[in-house]
Parts: sequence; C-alpha cells; structure tokens
Amino acid sequence: MVNIGVIGYGYWGPNLVRNFSAVDNASVRMIADMRKDRLNAVTKLYPTVTTTENPDDVINSKDIDAVVIALPVSAHYEAAKKALEAGKHVLVEKPLTDSSEKAQELIRIAKEKKLILMVDHTFLYTGAVKKMKSLMESGEIGEIQYFDSVRINLGLFQHDVNAIWDLAPHDISIMAQLIDKEPHSVVATGISHTGNGIENLAYLTINFTGNVLAHFNVSWTSPVKIRKILVGGTKKMIVFDDLEPTEKIRVYDTGYKLISQEEENRIRVDYRTGDVYIPKLDGQEALKGVAMDFIDSINTGNEPLSSAKLGLSVVKILEAAQESIKNRGREVLVK
Amino acid sequence: MVNIGVIGYGYWGPNLVRNFSAVDNASVRMIADMRKDRLNAVTKLYPTVTTTENPDDVINSKDIDAVVIALPVSAHYEAAKKALEAGKHVLVEKPLTDSSEKAQELIRIAKEKKLILMVDHTFLYTGAVKKMKSLMESGEIGEIQYFDSVRINLGLFQHDVNAIWDLAPHDISIMAQLIDKEPHSVVATGISHTGNGIENLAYLTINFTGNVLAHFNVSWTSPVKIRKILVGGTKKMIVFDDLEPTEKIRVYDTGYKLISQEEENRIRVDYRTGDVYIPKLDGQEALKGVAMDFIDSINTGNEPLSSAKLGLSVVKILEAAQESIKNRGREVLVK
Amino acid sequence: MVNIGVIGYGYWGPNLVRNFSAVDNASVRMIADMRKDRLNAVTKLYPTVTTTENPDDVINSKDIDAVVIALPVSAHYEAAKKALEAGKHVLVEKPLTDSSEKAQELIRIAKEKKLILMVDHTFLYTGAVKKMKSLMESGEIGEIQYFDSVRINLGLFQHDVNAIWDLAPHDISIMAQLIDKEPHSVVATGISHTGNGIENLAYLTINFTGNVLAHFNVSWTSPVKIRKILVGGTKKMIVFDDLEPTEKIRVYDTGYKLISQEEENRIRVDYRTGDVYIPKLDGQEALKGVAMDFIDSINTGNEPLSSAKLGLSVVKILEAAQESIKNRGREVLVK
Amino acid sequence: MVNIGVIGYGYWGPNLVRNFSAVDNASVRMIADMRKDRLNAVTKLYPTVTTTENPDDVINSKDIDAVVIALPVSAHYEAAKKALEAGKHVLVEKPLTDSSEKAQELIRIAKEKKLILMVDHTFLYTGAVKKMKSLMESGEIGEIQYFDSVRINLGLFQHDVNAIWDLAPHDISIMAQLIDKEPHSVVATGISHTGNGIENLAYLTINFTGNVLAHFNVSWTSPVKIRKILVGGTKKMIVFDDLEPTEKIRVYDTGYKLISQEEENRIRVDYRTGDVYIPKLDGQEALKGVAMDFIDSINTGNEPLSSAKLGLSVVKILEAAQESIKNRGREVLVK
Repeated sequence: MVNIGVIGYGYWGPNLVRNFSAVDNASVRMIADMRKDRLNAVTKLYPTVTTTENPDDVINSKDIDAVVIALPVSAHYEAAKKALEAGKHVLVEKPLTDSSEKAQELIRIAKEKKLILMVDHTFLYTGAVKKMKSLMESGEIGEIQYFDSVRINLGLFQHDVNAIWDLAPHDISIMAQLIDKEPHSVVATGISHTGNGIENLAYLTINFTGNVLAHFNVSWTSPVKIRKILVGGTKKMIVFDDLEPTEKIRVYDTGYKLISQEEENRIRVDYRTGDVYIPKLDGQEALKGVAMDFIDSINTGNEPLSSAKLGLSVVKILEAAQESIKNRGREVLVK
Repeated sequence: MVNIGVIGYGYWGPNLVRNFSAVDNASVRMIADMRKDRLNAVTKLYPTVTTTENPDDVINSKDIDAVVIALPVSAHYEAAKKALEAGKHVLVEKPLTDSSEKAQELIRIAKEKKLILMVDHTFLYTGAVKKMKSLMESGEIGEIQYFDSVRINLGLFQHDVNAIWDLAPHDISIMAQLIDKEPHSVVATGISHTGNGIENLAYLTINFTGNVLAHFNVSWTSPVKIRKILVGGTKKMIVFDDLEPTEKIRVYDTGYKLISQEEENRIRVDYRTGDVYIPKLDGQEALKGVAMDFIDSINTGNEPLSSAKLGLSVVKILEAAQESIKNRGREVLVK
Repeated sequence: MVNIGVIGYGYWGPNLVRNFSAVDNASVRMIADMRKDRLNAVTKLYPTVTTTENPDDVINSKDIDAVVIALPVSAHYEAAKKALEAGKHVLVEKPLTDSSEKAQELIRIAKEKKLILMVDHTFLYTGAVKKMKSLMESGEIGEIQYFDSVRINLGLFQHDVNAIWDLAPHDISIMAQLIDKEPHSVVATGISHTGNGIENLAYLTINFTGNVLAHFNVSWTSPVKIRKILVGGTKKMIVFDDLEPTEKIRVYDTGYKLISQEEENRIRVDYRTGDVYIPKLDGQEALKGVAMDFIDSINTGNEPLSSAKLGLSVVKILEAAQESIKNRGREVLVK
Repeated sequence: MVNIGVIGYGYWGPNLVRNFSAVDNASVRMIADMRKDRLNAVTKLYPTVTTTENPDDVINSKDIDAVVIALPVSAHYEAAKKALEAGKHVLVEKPLTDSSEKAQELIRIAKEKKLILMVDHTFLYTGAVKKMKSLMESGEIGEIQYFDSVRINLGLFQHDVNAIWDLAPHDISIMAQLIDKEPHSVVATGISHTGNGIENLAYLTINFTGNVLAHFNVSWTSPVKIRKILVGGTKKMIVFDDLEPTEKIRVYDTGYKLISQEEENRIRVDYRTGDVYIPKLDGQEALKGVAMDFIDSINTGNEPLSSAKLGLSVVKILEAAQESIKNRGREVLVK
C-alpha cells in the first residue's frame, strides 16, 4: 500500500484525490491547502483523511510514501525538491517546472535517491492518445511528416504564465508520443492584449531534424472552443478532435505520391483519398491511468510513461518558445 | 459597352467568361489560350467569340477595351504590362505579380495611362466578407485585436509557388478589409515534403502596429478541408466558416474585460459569453461582383474595391513571408 | 424548512438528493432503497441522513414533510397514494403513473388533502425550454404550426414500458409548454425486435384542434444519438438541439407566405430565409429548478410549473399512444 | 447509337440532356418544351439539337429511338403511353405515374412491344446507395430491422402532389434496394398549412412482413435541411447523411444482443459499440449512371436497375399512403 499526501486542493486536486482513492494499492492519507474552506470540503468527502494548512506537514510525515503536487507552476520546484529530499516519490502537475535547469536538478535528486519523479501529462493516458500511439507504432501511419494542433477557447487567463506555458504542454506531450525525433529549434509569435506582457494568443513552430514540423495554436481569447490535432504520415493521416464525444480519432487513408520530378521544381503529384476509419477508444478516465502508473512505478521501480525525462523535454521547448516569442520569432535552438 | 478580351482559359478562365458575359455593359469578344481543345470548348459555348492561340492578338486588337489575365502568377507581369502599354484596362488574377517591384511598375504605368488596373481578389465580393466589413465599419465589433485564418486541404500542389503564395492571398485580402492598419513585419515557417523547396505547409504571422496580430495556416496536405477565420474585436468576435452552406458568418457577443491590475502581472479578467447572431448574407456570385466592379471602374474612373494598391500590399506581405520562411522564421519588415 | 424523504436511490435518486441538499429551505432527512449497497453509498456521502430498506418508514415518519419518489413507473401510484394519505407532499418521477385513472385518483387525493403533487418533468426547468416558452409567449414565433421531435440512441432497453413511455414524456412535456391547445387524437406505430411486445422503436403523431400537428420519433436502437426538436411558427421557427454544448436553441427568421390562391389547389408561395439568432441560455442545473419549485409550492400553496395536471395530460397521451400502436396506427382520441 | 428525344426542359430536363450528351452510344436529337425561352436556351447550348413546342413531334419522329419524359407527374402517363405506342423506349421522371393502375398499363404496353420502360430514380445510381446495397448483399449488416428516413427542407411547395409524393419516392426507392421483403401496409399522417388539402409535412410508416419497419419524415416547411437515413441491421447499422460533402456513409459496428429472457417481458440486453467505418464512395454523377443504364438496357434488352417494376412498387406505396393520410392514419394494405 502506497500512502499518498496531496499538496494543493484547488482546481485539479480534487480530481487527483478522487482517482488515487479509487486505485487499489494506494491510500490518500493527508491533504494540504492554504485555504480552510477547501480543507473543510476534504473532510466532508473524506472524513478519514488528515488535513493541514502547512505543506511541510505532508512532506515531513512518516506516514507518507509519495507526494502529489498540484500547485501553480512557479511553486513546483521548491515543493518537489523538498519532498524528494525527504525521501518521497513525487508526482507533479504539468509542466514539471518553470525552467529546464530546475527540472534537471529535480531529476538528478530523484535519481540519486532512487525515487520516482513523474509529471501529470494526463493526455498521455487518454484512449485517444494511446490509440494514436499504437497506430503510429504499428507502422499503419508511416513516417510522420507534420503535427498541427489547435487548442483555443475563451478563458482562463493565467497570471504567471502565458498561453503557451498554460495550454501547449498538453499538445507537446502528445506530440512527443508520436514523433520519435529530437526537436531542433522553435519559432514562436504571439500577442498580449492585457498590457502585462503575458501572451493570451500565441503560435509555436517546432522544427525537427529530418524534415518534420510541428505547429501549435493556443489562445485564451477565442469565441469558439477548438481542440483539434492533425497528424500527417506518409501512409495515412489522423485527425484527433477532442470535442467529439466518442468519435475523437479518425484515420484517413489519404495521401499523395510524387510521380515524377522531371526538372527542378517540376513535380507531378498523385492524390489519394480513401476510406476513413473511426476506432473505438478505451473509455477509462485518463487520470486514473496516471494514478495507476505512478503507483506501479513506485512498486516496480520502472519509469512511468509520463516520465520526468519527458517532462524536461516539454519544459525545454517551452523555455525556447518563451525566448523566441520575446525576440519576435527568432529561431531558438532546443538544447 | 466594354469589350473584353480574356487571356488564359484554364481553371478560372471559364468562370470569368461566364460572369463577364452576364454583365450588362460588357461583352466578351476574344479569348486566347495555348491549348486548342480549350478554344474549341469556347467556340462550342460561345460561337460568336473570337479565339486565338496568341495572347498578343487580344492585346493588340482594336476591338478590345479591357483585358482579363488568367495565367500562372509568373506570367502576370509581362501580359499586364503589354496590355496596359497597348492602352487596355487590365484585370489580373491574384496575386497581382510575383514581386512588389513589378507590381509597382504596373501601377505606375496604369496611372500614367489613366487605365484601370484591378486584381481579382474574389473573396472581397462575397456576401460573407462584405458583411464582416460592414459589421466592422458599424463599430459593432469594436477595435480588432487578432485575425486567425486556416485554409487547408488535400491538393493542389503548385509547381512555381508555395502554399503561402497560392492560398494566403485570399485571407490576406480579407484581412486587409478588416484591419485598417499597416502591417509592420512578418514571421513565417513551413516545410516542403516534395524535395523541391516549395513549402506545401506553412504558417505566417503578421505583426501590426498597435497591438494587433494576424496568423495564417495554409496547407496542401491536410486530410480534411478547413476554411475558417476568427476575428477578435474588443466588443464582439466573428467566426467565418466558408464551408457552411449558408450560415457562414457567426457574430459572438463574447469578450472579456480587465477588471483590475492590482500589481504587476496580476490581472483579474471578467469573461462574457452572450447571444450568437448569424446574419443572412447576400447570395450573389462573388465573381459577378468582380466583373461589375471592373466595368464600373472603367466607366466611372473610380478605383475598384479590389484595387491594384490592395494587390500590391498583398504581394509585399507574400514577399516578406518568402524571405522569412527561407530564413527559418526571421522577422522581416513589410516595407 | 421542508424535511424531505426520498424513496428510491437508483439512477436518478442521487441527483435528486444532491439538488435538494443544495436548496435553502429544504433538508433531506431520510432515504429508502431496497439495496443495502446503495444505502451505504448514502451514508458515506451524507452521514446525517437516515437510511432504511422500508419505504413505509419514510412515508410514516413524523419528521418528513414531503416525499420524493424515484421508483419504476409501475410503483409510482402505490407509493404516491400512501404518501399523500399520510399527509405528505409528493414529487414523483415522470411519467406520473402508468394509467390516467390512477393519475386522476392521485390528483383527487392531493386536492382533498390540500397537498402539493408534482411530477419531475425536468426538461421544463432547462434554460432551453424556458427560452423557447418565453419566445413563444412574446409572440415572436407567431402561431405554432408543428412540433417535430427526435429522441433516439442506443439503449437502455426497459423491461416494463416501451420506448414511447420511456422517452416521449420529455418531449410531450416540452410540447405542452409551447402548444396552448388540447390534443385531439394520436396515431402511433412501432416495432419490437426483442420478441416481448415492447416496442424499442416507435413513432407518434398527435393531432390538435386548429390545424396543428406534433410528431415524435423515439428509439433505443439507433447507432447515433439525436435529440432534436423543430418548432414551426407562422413567424419564425426554432431548432432545439440538446446535444449542442451551449448553442442549443436557434431561432430562424424563416417562413413562407401564401401570395395568392388563384384557383383550387393552385398556390403561390413566397419563401423567406433571414438571420439566425442563438440566444444565451440560463445555465442553472434543471433539477435544481425542480427542487426549488417543489419547495416553493409547498411553502406558498401555488401550483408548480410541472404540475400534476400536466403530468396527467402526458399520461393520457401515452395511454392513447399505447392503444394506437397495438392497433397498428388506428386513430385514438385523447379524452 | 441511340437517338434520344426529351420532352420537358424545365428544372430537371437540362441535367438529363447534359448527361445523355455525355454518354457514348447516345445522341440527344430533339427537345420539346412549351416555353420558347427554354428552347432558345437549348439552341444556344446545343445548336445541332432540333427544338419544338409540340411533344408529339418528338414522339412521332422517325429519327428518335427513345423518349425521356421530364414533365409534371400528372402528365407522365399520357406522354409515356403515346411514346410506347409509337414504338419508343421510355425513361420517365419519378414517380412513374400518379396511380398504380396507370403504371400497370404502361408496363403491360412496354412488355407487349418489347420496349424498355424505366423510371429515373436517380438515387439508386449514387455512390452512397450502391455502397449501402453492396454492404447489405455482402452480409456485413445482417438482417435489416428498420429503415428511418428524414428528408426535410424549406420549399418548394408543389401544386398537385403533397410532400410524400414529392419527396418520399427518393427514400422509398432507396429502401427497396435494401429491404428484400414485400411491404405489407402503411400508416400515414400529415398536415396542410396552405388550406388546399396538400400536406406540406407528413409522416409515413411502412410495415413489412417479418418484423421490419420503415419510417419516412418529409416536409417542405423545415427551417433546416436534413437528409438522413438510418438503417438498422442485426449485425451493424448504417447512417447515410446526404449533406456530408464526401463522408456520406458511416457503418457503425454497433448493436445489441438479447442475453436472456428469464420470464415474460424480462429481458437483459447487452449493448455493443465499436469502430465506425466511412467507406470511400464512387463519385460519378448519378444521373450519368441513369443515362448509361437506359442506353445499355435498350441495347441488351436487359431490365435496368431502376425498372418500371420498381417504379410501380413505389407508386403502390404512395397510393396507399395517400389513402391512409386522408383517413387520419388508418392502416392501408399495399396490394
């Protein structure tokens, strides 16, 4: 039995607690939050769970094996570091930290202490992303050529991070499941309409080695909600529309072939459109998968799917995007 | 009566001829194309129209007052120059030319000779764009904050120009109707999967003075067809979905308000979602509007809506985009 | 403070309890269900609520002012009768009873005892139906001409009632809000694919006096889920699509006018299509409105919106439909 | 070479002429219409075709082998009869005639004279219907259980026939391709809002022997256009949405299974939802298929797919529907 302490019971915390409560080998024992009203809500729903206003109580408790951190991004590093140093396994909300340096330090500590450090990139555990990954691995899609994501909506404006840091981690983590290549560089543009320099609307291009490109469109200021990803392969293409209630993934037997290249720039292209296939998806709540993977990793010592390494690679891209956007689209290498 | 000669009877030519034939004060008298089979098709449909394989016959004919040029982009400049120098009014397919220098020269000649030079930015004459323009001018939308366009599809790969030159002129000309500001700079990224350096997939950001941004997503390699534009105003927002059969324009009474900015980067935002309104649109074929505007401009000497000046500003953006994309996203000023 | 007892804690019961718990002047005090596991779930969530396996404990409790009945249709009458006779106000799930005779008896008892008898036609309390009703009452739609409803899905097959009794009460209650006329007769057809004479797929036409017609398409065996109602008025038309997340109601400024009727059967019709308007809807959970209306009615003695009278009129239509369907579409008068 | 004469050049006539002109072994030689302006339009487009205001000129011409009749329904019988008696093969617009008696007489004459008599049920030649038919014949769908069609729109009101005669022939002919059973009886309801007794809105149920049911919803007075057919099979289900530009057919691996029937009316049902498959469809214009089938049948003597026999069975259903609707839903046997 893994005893869990949770730090932060705001927007996402209750979902984490509910899902960890439903996992067999886990038990939520302690929850910390600065707000009394939230702790009262905990007590009403989970009378046996200990509550505290002091996160250190969780971190220092001898009853706790693993700490789940659901705080604002800027607080991730300090809480995770303390918890790791206190010998606890750690699951952090996405993105892992607000800088790659901090992420690397956390990874180093976890490695030294032989502890699991995991990031909650929830989307990786959805039926849709698992299906896309397996389609890709089966070879049915062919070599990936592009990845195009739109995640726009009205609200919620963040105070500390821009729309890229807030929204793109979802799509970047999905991309990382499908593109088995290293990101080379990024170009980002965007705009802030709130006068505080925090972009509410932004665009990000990631260049990969080997003629692959990814693009992300994120916004807090769209009148309509769109959550759509296109994946172009050499054999087939995928459309993932997360707003479809059940038919989220469509596989298009669509493509084109270069017939001949007679002279420079003179190409004949043969288009092909065929059947479309909408696979049935695993319907398990994704966050349950996150909780189970964390507990399994603790018990087996194996790396979770949503590893700290993946979390670091996401942070590196966000960091480069930040630099590019502040330099009006300058290409920034992803180191 | 304005006598019209048409040069080029390929994909778009037949539509131009059909629409000019339906305009009261115009008469299509001559059509040139290099392909015999196309000229035969002309003769079958329009037995009284003269056909020729030599464009110069059209340009030099005394019977012809105005020349309509529906050739590949690279041939626009030479044909238009000859026609203007021969004293003919000219309507050219979009984009006006393949360089801003050439566009400027054509404009200069037209001005000297007091001739109409017009570009066929057909979209400006659609009910949808006219409605968006009048909504903007009425003040109902408020100040524009962003313009976001997606125009993706499978095919048709072009040999001589990339997806930006091929597809974005539509959206840039629409943008120019709505944003009454000068474009300052562009950042463009893209990729070619055909090995000839011609991007089949590209992204373009345009920065305006005064905190306005526009973005364009164009592709010949999408499994699905999307033609959607979002326009964000300070009062309302518009979604233009050109694939909707009739309900193309939606006006969202949606927005947000900065309530307070307590300290640096600390903002409270109040969201508002209200009614949606789908205005009825003028259903006239847009190309008929192009034809009528061209004839009217010839008769009155007034500048057409889709003026050469507009055509030049589109070409300047395309040119800057080309430079940026070849320099991996470097910001390029629009001069 | 109205003290509430709930009988039946299966599919809908938990929603009722949650909503009554959130109403100011109400307190859920007792819950009865035959299944122990369900009562345990109650205790976990609401430790202060008394549970019992015997519904009579609720009905006979002196602490209870009002009883909420969430049992299968066939059990409504007996439980409601007992509760009324014990002097309790009663809220019953839809449909009120399985026969109009029983419904009339319950109404008679409630009247005698001066108790509130209400039916949970939840849809009447949705933002969408309230908006349609106010549009109708404002005169904006004109005289109603037809009502056309589709409510189809895969599952859940019922054991005791057919798809009309199971699904149509929703739509019939909505219709009754909009059509201020008496139903004259019904014609129903349907089919059972389960060999037990219980139709899984059925169609119902309701004829009204005064040239108005309503039609209902219900099914448990559709591969796709559709929940759509068309309302045709002499001035405008409404489409209510309950699967739209927010844009559920569309008002079409659409219609036609008879221009002349030159000779018998010789009509010229002038069509009109205009703007479409998507009003913002009240987002309050409908069941909360049900709970509040029940408590208000108890406190004020006023008739609730979803009255027993309305419940009776729905049952009369269902009864007539049952007779028609078993007689292969014979017209059956609604008495 | 089959020489074709066309009678009627109104709404559908030009499409027929265009398609027959494109068929290899056919030549349109003569066109009759009462309106001069239409004949002028013919001459402009097809200078070599003879025009006449007198249909008898077509029927009696020695140059003509086959007559295509595109007149109002009430005129079909007389024109077709004359043409058959003059020894011409005949293609008539749908529905074949306005009574089954007349249809039977035409069939008798055609048989005697060994002439082809064909009805233009165009939908049978669409890629979508051909695909549904082949899916059904392959056994993939299983035994058909129901057929549910909606064909509603605003306009065009007809003067002589109601919405069932006008719209339902399309769907009934499609149904006849998929259901290999005899229709047993019909029940129809509807309403006229124009005061001339011609229903603008109607519903039709067809009962088949062997526990199969079909339903049709037709209207000229819907604010929205819907053209959707559901086909329920014992193995899979099909949705045909004719308004989808390309993805018209979806095959749902969806169903249910009766697990046990413990006691009377006590059934446990196991639901299954699986993949969805969108087959690519043949994109040939359907009317071209009609024209080719007519010419082939003339040349080979084989019965066309859209045979007079099929046309008669459609008329029988329409006739029964007419009787039922005028008797307020009385079940009428299809003889």
